[in-house]
Amino acid sequence: MTEEHQVIFFPSGKRGLVPENTTILQAARRLGVDLDSVCGGLGICSKCQVEPTFGEFAKHGMTADPNALSPWNAVEERYRQKRGLLEGRRLGCQARIAGDVVVSVPPESQINKQVIRKEISARPFTLEAATKLFFVRVDEPDMKSPTGDFERLRVAMKKQWDLDILPPELSLLSRLQPVLRRGNWEVTVAVHTAHDNERQTLIDVWPGLLEESLYGIAIDLGSTTIAAHLVNLETGEVVASAGQMNPQIRFGEDLMSRVSYAMMNPDGSTEMTRVVRETLGELCSGLVKEGSLVPETIVELVFVCNPIMHHLLLGLDPVELGQAPFALATSDSIGIKASEVGIMDINPRAQAYILPCIAGHVGADAAAVVLSEVPNQSEDLVLIVDVGTNAEIILGNYERVLACSSPTGPAFEGAQISSGQRAAKGAIERVEISPATKEPRFQVIGSDLWSDHRDFRKSLGDTQITGICGSGIIEAVAEMRLAGIMDQSGLIGSPKQTGTRRSIADGRTYSYVIYEAGGDPLRQIAVTQADVRAIQLAKSALYAGARLLMDEMGVATVARVVLAGAFGAHISPKHALILGMIPDVPLPKVTSAGNAAGNGALIALCNRSMRTEIEAVVGEITKVETAIEPRFQEHFVAANGIPHGIDPFPNLSKTISLPTERFRAGGNSAADKRRRRRKN
Amino acid sequence: MTEEHQVIFFPSGKRGLVPENTTILQAARRLGVDLDSVCGGLGICSKCQVEPTFGEFAKHGMTADPNALSPWNAVEERYRQKRGLLEGRRLGCQARIAGDVVVSVPPESQINKQVIRKEISARPFTLEAATKLFFVRVDEPDMKSPTGDFERLRVAMKKQWDLDILPPELSLLSRLQPVLRRGNWEVTVAVHTAHDNERQTLIDVWPGLLEESLYGIAIDLGSTTIAAHLVNLETGEVVASAGQMNPQIRFGEDLMSRVSYAMMNPDGSTEMTRVVRETLGELCSGLVKEGSLVPETIVELVFVCNPIMHHLLLGLDPVELGQAPFALATSDSIGIKASEVGIMDINPRAQAYILPCIAGHVGADAAAVVLSEVPNQSEDLVLIVDVGTNAEIILGNYERVLACSSPTGPAFEGAQISSGQRAAKGAIERVEISPATKEPRFQVIGSDLWSDHRDFRKSLGDTQITGICGSGIIEAVAEMRLAGIMDQSGLIGSPKQTGTRRSIADGRTYSYVIYEAGGDPLRQIAVTQADVRAIQLAKSALYAGARLLMDEMGVATVARVVLAGAFGAHISPKHALILGMIPDVPLPKVTSAGNAAGNGALIALCNRSMRTEIEAVVGEITKVETAIEPRFQEHFVAANGIPHGIDPFPNLSKTISLPTERFRAGGNSAADKRRRRRKN
Repeated sequence: MTEEHQVIFFPSGKRGLVPENTTILQAARRLGVDLDSVCGGLGICSKCQVEPTFGEFAKHGMTADPNALSPWNAVEERYRQKRGLLEGRRLGCQARIAGDVVVSVPPESQINKQVIRKEISARPFTLEAATKLFFVRVDEPDMKSPTGDFERLRVAMKKQWDLDILPPELSLLSRLQPVLRRGNWEVTVAVHTAHDNERQTLIDVWPGLLEESLYGIAIDLGSTTIAAHLVNLETGEVVASAGQMNPQIRFGEDLMSRVSYAMMNPDGSTEMTRVVRETLGELCSGLVKEGSLVPETIVELVFVCNPIMHHLLLGLDPVELGQAPFALATSDSIGIKASEVGIMDINPRAQAYILPCIAGHVGADAAAVVLSEVPNQSEDLVLIVDVGTNAEIILGNYERVLACSSPTGPAFEGAQISSGQRAAKGAIERVEISPATKEPRFQVIGSDLWSDHRDFRKSLGDTQITGICGSGIIEAVAEMRLAGIMDQSGLIGSPKQTGTRRSIADGRTYSYVIYEAGGDPLRQIAVTQADVRAIQLAKSALYAGARLLMDEMGVATVARVVLAGAFGAHISPKHALILGMIPDVPLPKVTSAGNAAGNGALIALCNRSMRTEIEAVVGEITKVETAIEPRFQEHFVAANGIPHGIDPFPNLSKTISLPTERFRAGGNSAADKRRRRRKN
Repeated sequence: MTEEHQVIFFPSGKRGLVPENTTILQAARRLGVDLDSVCGGLGICSKCQVEPTFGEFAKHGMTADPNALSPWNAVEERYRQKRGLLEGRRLGCQARIAGDVVVSVPPESQINKQVIRKEISARPFTLEAATKLFFVRVDEPDMKSPTGDFERLRVAMKKQWDLDILPPELSLLSRLQPVLRRGNWEVTVAVHTAHDNERQTLIDVWPGLLEESLYGIAIDLGSTTIAAHLVNLETGEVVASAGQMNPQIRFGEDLMSRVSYAMMNPDGSTEMTRVVRETLGELCSGLVKEGSLVPETIVELVFVCNPIMHHLLLGLDPVELGQAPFALATSDSIGIKASEVGIMDINPRAQAYILPCIAGHVGADAAAVVLSEVPNQSEDLVLIVDVGTNAEIILGNYERVLACSSPTGPAFEGAQISSGQRAAKGAIERVEISPATKEPRFQVIGSDLWSDHRDFRKSLGDTQITGICGSGIIEAVAEMRLAGIMDQSGLIGSPKQTGTRRSIADGRTYSYVIYEAGGDPLRQIAVTQADVRAIQLAKSALYAGARLLMDEMGVATVARVVLAGAFGAHISPKHALILGMIPDVPLPKVTSAGNAAGNGALIALCNRSMRTEIEAVVGEITKVETAIEPRFQEHFVAANGIPHGIDPFPNLSKTISLPTERFRAGGNSAADKRRRRRKN
């Protein structure tokens, strides 16, 4: 009988007895240890590098034995000379066990590496890409048993990797014969494993061992902007990012105007599909170029988007989403070829995955937020608000999760605001107003200094102050309320009422001038009464949606609030609370999640099990439809006022004083830090 | 407890007890009786018509009871008035069982109708199309549970038909919402059930109940000709047929010259793929037009072809098939969308099935011959020869089946013959030569009379005698041998040796003149020495292939021979035996199978279980490669002579006398009958 030896793997701690002469790779597989290999143990790919830790033997109660592994062999030596191998490392497929041994698996040799992206998300996840590379040796053809080249590849994949591959599409089948011969019957195949199917799809085949990594692109397709991240599927690293405006904007700023465009124009829907696919194609091509990649190595796409973007991406007429009962053509996740949505400059057989929609108004983007923020695993009751032209609102904990969307409109993004603009250089993004003097100071994207700093002008350089962006208008309105320039109803006072000449008449109402532009009225930046009304409508919609979910959940308060979305990351939690955008919670309980939807897309791109997870979670979410719910209207109307603040002029009866201690933390929040980073 | 009643169904004879008030349709399903229904029992489709046979009760030992069924109801009355219902028939979904009853299911109400095509094949089969229609009622959308329209259709298909449908492709998904609404949430769907997958593919969806049938096209893609049959998938009826020349002929008459073309020209393979797909598209469009069909109702294609046609159809470079080891890119059956091989003017989601290839030289056409002629179920040892430019040869019985192909070349089809032409009006197709006078007589396509009949000229009308076709040249050479005009080696004698002035000098050899054309040497039709050599090469290849299989099987004789293929159907068995095309068997044991490959395609088109069957059978076939087998060369050389006949001139030693009784049956064979039908 063969002697057996004790092997312990780190960091997993898995251990067991294996027969003498077993390779470390075989031992890892037998013990269920996560040790990578593309070539399946042929000494070609070097993915299975390990570090035998002889020095620590005593610690693990084993005797140190320098002969516990077979000697360094020719394959390892050739590999070391050709490509280098770190001191102390062995190839797991070459080193054979000859005694008790402890083996460390370095992070880069683990298949399911843990990925932590500090910048983007708090949720760590492991790598488990749907498409992976496998090196395989195929039997040569034999007239005695004349099966096709593909059938022999299939047999080899079953035997060497235990994978059942489906017949490939013709475009790949037609390349199989020359590639097999060029590789002398050794090829690397890219295989896609759908998370809901046991059989595998061949994505591509290369002669010999492919030296490149595989890549994927996570795409957050918003109504206004499209963001895309190119990710190395073997390391989880974001290699390049790019963004572009959604070209559909010319058919309508908000979602409903795009649905209207589709309704009113016979080819409206087709046209919107065409332009967005074109832009997506350009974005992807640009990323491939930026990363200097071989286009065929991009094999996976993941999309998140709201239901209307979802339908327009897929070429589905969104008209049913514009009217009750808001029927989706399909609500489940979608697995198609990227080429079917017109993404061409990547692998022609690249797979695209779109997360499931939650309801007619709550899309795959909301599902991605759930995947990123996991309210379904939260101990305390969390309210997640993804603020955009349409806000997705999610409330829940490990017991139950509710979701709705709310039509906030584009005011939060600086649109439909008199001096509004997108967040770009020259936009006012922070505002403070002194309650004593009623004088404002502000910060502008492009400078780190406040406007009352003596070097402010200099720090701006060539940058002109051109307008006010979403976070700026929110702070401005909230500060106007705190400084007593407007009352609880949102009415801006006259110069007499407010006691400042910055309150100027504007027809029958008043505006508050934030930036005087040296007296040039054309370049002056003010908050008009109409601007305040627009912000009130937007924040009421947001608040009413949150309250509707709280009603449904039967709660009057929530434990914490997460502001999500690219814009959400820039909102000052203090001002959001003052405005009444979100229900009252202690200020430290308001956090920013950054682009949670985009992060959810990244997670689904890197880990196919997470696709299974989010599909199951979405099925359990209770959907609440705001559009037809009378209580939504009630909450909406009731939320119109701006409760917190001081009411200096007496045309409103009720004054609610600001519980100041709540709002003191501002300035060190994640949003503040992010805002500082944005300056360039 | 509900009372139960005895029900007997005919013609199946299935019987059982069912609870009172069960509909006949429900009872049929419960008892496993084959009763059709598209609407699933809603009284809409009328496919479930039955004939309660009260009169025969006594015979089945049951008491006649006119009240054994629920009374004629309003649905049935409305149906009768609107569309008519034969006297004595009931709708199976309306008539409920109220007592013991005997129910006849007329053939048109059976799903798996038996199909017998007298014209084309001997093998009967039942209808079991892969794509079928289902009427389904879908739940309307509901905001409380906002699943997509497709997901509700899927649930309905599961509940109402127990079918698991896969998400449809985008082109169909985009039509789903309007169709569901137009049909007021009732639709007819066409569902494809692959024979090797449990999940179903949606092919199309129509509002309400679709009144049309579904159709399929069986295509026999030969090197020289392409034949296509349009079939009603609900009745099995061939609605229209069409044929066209394979346009690849301009790249090479035979298979190997096409492979050479692909090797020598960079885009040669692509070009050949393009032209054949174009012609296939035209053929299909023509059939759809001829049948006056809605293109969307054509939902299935089946192809049979040799491996090189197979690869060129699929866009696979056939170059590997031109050299040992003759590796197929893929050997298994293929299931793809028809559009992938460029067939566009039918349903855009129509499915195409290609039978499996047996080996690098033995294709899906040979598999189709096996499916049609079932050698694997034969009690006696049968040799099947599908004669074309390439001959497929199959030998076997229920114990074992062998297959090979043999490169006969185009001589049997009249090509490479000095006066050769395709079988068309004006071609000599039968020849007799009097051993006494050495004078010939012949028949010409276009007339029923022999050339020595006094009305022969008149019967021809405008038809000119233009050449000799494949069956004509075979008979001519065989008759020349029988009449002592040539010797066993195939040498045509001089006028002096043969004693006839029809033997004329042609350089250093002699020709035999069959048609003198009034002395016009340009229109004269003769068999030259080179023609005889071409036929000898072709028949030797065929014979050698057959002998190789017999060697492999370890037998010296076979029990029967089947001549298959469009051309095989026209060969005179007697002359085939005289020539030595096939091994000796008693003449009545040589039969014609008509276009067995085309018939196999029809069977696979109409019955998806037959696809499973042929795939399994092909896996069991022993493949014999002629190209590299030394014994093939030996047999080939040995088979060069024409053994049976008389040797009047003494330059050859051995004379084998004709066992005349064997060859007497000619004139009444199936081939003769078919030949007579071809005259028009």
